[in-house]
Amino acid sequence: MLKVTLLAGGVGGAKMAEGFDGLEGVELSVIGNIADDAEFHGLWVSPDIDTLTYSLANRIDRAQGWGVADESHRALSVLNELGDDTWMTLGDRDFGLHIYRTNALRQGQSRSEIAAHVARVFGVTSQIILPTDDVVQTRVRVSSGWLTFQEYFVREQCKPEVMALEFEGIGAARPTPAALEAINSADLIVIAPSNPLVSIDPILNIPGIRAAIGAAKARKIAVSPLIDGKTIKGPAAGMMASLGLRADAYGIAGHYQGLIDTLVIDHADSALSNQINALNLAAICEHTLMQTRADKIALAQAIIGGLP
Amino acid sequence: MLKVTLLAGGVGGAKMAEGFDGLEGVELSVIGNIADDAEFHGLWVSPDIDTLTYSLANRIDRAQGWGVADESHRALSVLNELGDDTWMTLGDRDFGLHIYRTNALRQGQSRSEIAAHVARVFGVTSQIILPTDDVVQTRVRVSSGWLTFQEYFVREQCKPEVMALEFEGIGAARPTPAALEAINSADLIVIAPSNPLVSIDPILNIPGIRAAIGAAKARKIAVSPLIDGKTIKGPAAGMMASLGLRADAYGIAGHYQGLIDTLVIDHADSALSNQINALNLAAICEHTLMQTRADKIALAQAIIGGLP
Repeated sequence: MLKVTLLAGGVGGAKMAEGFDGLEGVELSVIGNIADDAEFHGLWVSPDIDTLTYSLANRIDRAQGWGVADESHRALSVLNELGDDTWMTLGDRDFGLHIYRTNALRQGQSRSEIAAHVARVFGVTSQIILPTDDVVQTRVRVSSGWLTFQEYFVREQCKPEVMALEFEGIGAARPTPAALEAINSADLIVIAPSNPLVSIDPILNIPGIRAAIGAAKARKIAVSPLIDGKTIKGPAAGMMASLGLRADAYGIAGHYQGLIDTLVIDHADSALSNQINALNLAAICEHTLMQTRADKIALAQAIIGGLP
Repeated sequence: MLKVTLLAGGVGGAKMAEGFDGLEGVELSVIGNIADDAEFHGLWVSPDIDTLTYSLANRIDRAQGWGVADESHRALSVLNELGDDTWMTLGDRDFGLHIYRTNALRQGQSRSEIAAHVARVFGVTSQIILPTDDVVQTRVRVSSGWLTFQEYFVREQCKPEVMALEFEGIGAARPTPAALEAINSADLIVIAPSNPLVSIDPILNIPGIRAAIGAAKARKIAVSPLIDGKTIKGPAAGMMASLGLRADAYGIAGHYQGLIDTLVIDHADSALSNQINALNLAAICEHTLMQTRADKIALAQAIIGGLP
């Protein structure tokens, strides 16, 4: 078995996870992002972890890429009537999970234990691992002040220009033993085509994680989330430009330079290969747009097949 | 305006409340029972208050007499999958309310404030008043030990014989100012045809409530929940018999003797009038079975019309 450890955010990360999850001979561990977590209506919501879980459990709403299939919004409509802010769309099945998680947390279970239990019950065979059991929350500075990540991402629809990012609580966060073990024991570490600044950095910057990846014996490959300078979904390109990074595969290469040895880029970006090589990184050109299940598996297979 | 203050439990109490709520010239305050309240999945559930609210808001599931119309159970199905006990049927709209209540409680609002807000938002014009903002919880002793009320009522379907009842926390509970004011200012105090032992007693036994009713200038009338020695719904008859009370309208009269001046009984029980009169209580015979909206209004009208 090839042990693959994937660092992943939400929608794009989940697609990459499904690709590896669908391969024979691969034992997949996914270290997800918990810095988008937030409390809504007194319940703890973990959007990226849930997107991973719902995707690997084949419960995801395929049309929108997040949330649960066959969903309704009765609870949210009542909360809206009663005056709660309801810009965060939470469905009824989804609420069942958030209610369970919040109650289990209150009873003293760790976020990791809860995530592992949910994944197991939902039939996920790959491991979903939290990078930390502590609370780390991304804050986004825009012209009007600091926003929580979901305020920026969902409520403001990523429209305000991002002036700064911080990961509240990250300095004191401890990595989970499972995350360190998945990194240490991996044959291949893959950084999914997720937003490097708000999905991957909050994993990498948890004290101990980056160093563990540095020390790991595995091959280390990232997949560029940018194709021809554009993101498939989400604000990565604009956010990178605002924060002074080049918003293309070369910018991704620069961001991960020193951590990875290979960057997978789209065929559309093949002209950037030489520049990326100049950063002492190998560049592999593949079809990186994952629309179908076959696309996901093909990309995962190509990444593995491209290993020397 | 005739000020009517109704003491009410769940389903039967809500029907009586709808009767008075439907009358012109009546200003209705309902003091509900909070001793059936319990936490489920970490959320605070208040079944009798919610049944009152849903009934007066015309959102009640009319077929079952409790819960919300147009309901689904997606959240509960997920909680069930994840291993929570789900014998307490909670629908998705209903969960919206429980999530709201629990969050508002955590933010420091009182149960009374929350109940009043919910009733107002849902369009209830009568006042729904809690007898106390403290936690009082009915415990039921059966042969296997003590059960919470919902364990006895829902999980065990009222099957075990009731050997004792207690209202945990009632000694230290303080009556709400609104409950005392509704009692003091009433022209008519009505005890709904609810279970006297587990719906009405936990209201009456809150320190200060019974004395306030005693001191009130209002006429005081109870409606027997038993017709021909049987309950319409719920365990009142068997529970009364188990606890040594006569399980008929006469037993109801004896239970409320000294507190009320008039008992409304069903025509089927007219033969008990003399025995009830011997307890120094007037007996009024009416059609007390409330199946339709017209039945509820007719009974409320008859109670008011029967006043001297």
